[in-house]
Amino acid sequence: VSGDPVELRAFGLPGVPEVRPGDDLGALLAEAAQRAGGLRDGDVVCVAHKIVSKAEGRLRLLEEIEAGPQAVELARQAAKDPRQVQAVLDESAEVLRAERGVLICVTRHGFVCANAGVDASNAGAEGVVVLLPEDPDASARSLRAALRERTGVAPAVVITDSFGRAWRLGQAEVAIGVAGLAALDDWRGRRDADGRELTATAIALADEAAAAADLARGGKDARVPVALIRGLGAHVTADDGAGAAALVRPAVEDLFR
Amino acid sequence: VSGDPVELRAFGLPGVPEVRPGDDLGALLAEAAQRAGGLRDGDVVCVAHKIVSKAEGRLRLLEEIEAGPQAVELARQAAKDPRQVQAVLDESAEVLRAERGVLICVTRHGFVCANAGVDASNAGAEGVVVLLPEDPDASARSLRAALRERTGVAPAVVITDSFGRAWRLGQAEVAIGVAGLAALDDWRGRRDADGRELTATAIALADEAAAAADLARGGKDARVPVALIRGLGAHVTADDGAGAAALVRPAVEDLFR
Repeated sequence: VSGDPVELRAFGLPGVPEVRPGDDLGALLAEAAQRAGGLRDGDVVCVAHKIVSKAEGRLRLLEEIEAGPQAVELARQAAKDPRQVQAVLDESAEVLRAERGVLICVTRHGFVCANAGVDASNAGAEGVVVLLPEDPDASARSLRAALRERTGVAPAVVITDSFGRAWRLGQAEVAIGVAGLAALDDWRGRRDADGRELTATAIALADEAAAAADLARGGKDARVPVALIRGLGAHVTADDGAGAAALVRPAVEDLFR
Repeated sequence: VSGDPVELRAFGLPGVPEVRPGDDLGALLAEAAQRAGGLRDGDVVCVAHKIVSKAEGRLRLLEEIEAGPQAVELARQAAKDPRQVQAVLDESAEVLRAERGVLICVTRHGFVCANAGVDASNAGAEGVVVLLPEDPDASARSLRAALRERTGVAPAVVITDSFGRAWRLGQAEVAIGVAGLAALDDWRGRRDADGRELTATAIALADEAAAAADLARGGKDARVPVALIRGLGAHVTADDGAGAAALVRPAVEDLFR
């Protein structure tokens, strides 16, 4: 992969309508891209997970959830709806921290984030929570295949969410599902500009792409869940690749759990 | 601040020469921007910290460092040069973890990163380590003032470094010094697209800008330490603002130390 500087362009794709369970999201994305002048080889389509989850029906009605004792207790401490906490627990492999109204969870995919990604904002209706996709890498592969089918071009697809971080304030957009982009660009063993071996550098390309897309999509009040990044073609692969799973730090190698 | 989608452009500014202590980095950046067509209002100039540190003389010669007992012991465990470990300790307010050859430190600025940001790669010579700037927000303000002086335009300036993350593999570029950009875009109290109040969303804009710049700068083998981002003008302020200090999570609020 070339390390040369590139000109990157990132822009929101307006006109994606409110997504409902069962909608053909691939078709909606293809239409939005078409209106923006069409897809090109090497494009990266970044999609906020919320519309992927909605299309896949990954929604729960709070009224259909019965909170168990752990959810009731955690909800009491955090001043939250116990049914929403139960939804969080149902999506969690492990709760790392439950303090100050915040639940930091390991999702079943291995991601570490607040509330296991379960969120009521932009859910489309009161009393509804949106979950992360069941298998976001599979969702990305499927959207990529649908885009290829409809447009003849196979852009990389990155499904994103806003995660908080240890140590730093604010959320940053990260990749939770990837197809066709090297999520991790591994420079270990390669050399720096002085010819000195780089010992421990792997760049989380897909997370950086997610961040760039977030800047282009505008704020959370602007309903633009999709952005296109042009200029990363050197990292876009014909194969779907290892996906965002490559970004999950194995628990045994993680010093901060 | 408008939440509308924008078209973002990010591109490397080639032609910044090898930087040495005492160089006028503001002048070098102004010239590089001029060659790329000049600065415009609302531009964000992202600068890899290494050239800022070099211009500021934030370098140490290993041969001039005497390792103390703690450095010797940590270096033994990690198979590192004890003098380099001493340089890390000298830049650290606290060592959070020392395991598996990795030192995760809190820098005197409050940043949490490997080796307190002390790095030998791209240092320009063997036996030299590069430190983080003494006060990266002040460095950013100073570069902004120099650019304003020389070009009549006051772009935002973001000084960046690659940090590893808890829980996720790979490094991502983050902001360590900021002038003229809202480092943290606080959406708390504002409403989502459904009109529902957003309870806990603040976006680490400056970190996302750093990430976008990193994608545009190319790989660590391409000596392009500067990138320009165009399209974030809605977040660029006349005041220098609170800087990257706004991104430091106070230790007492941090669940992962």
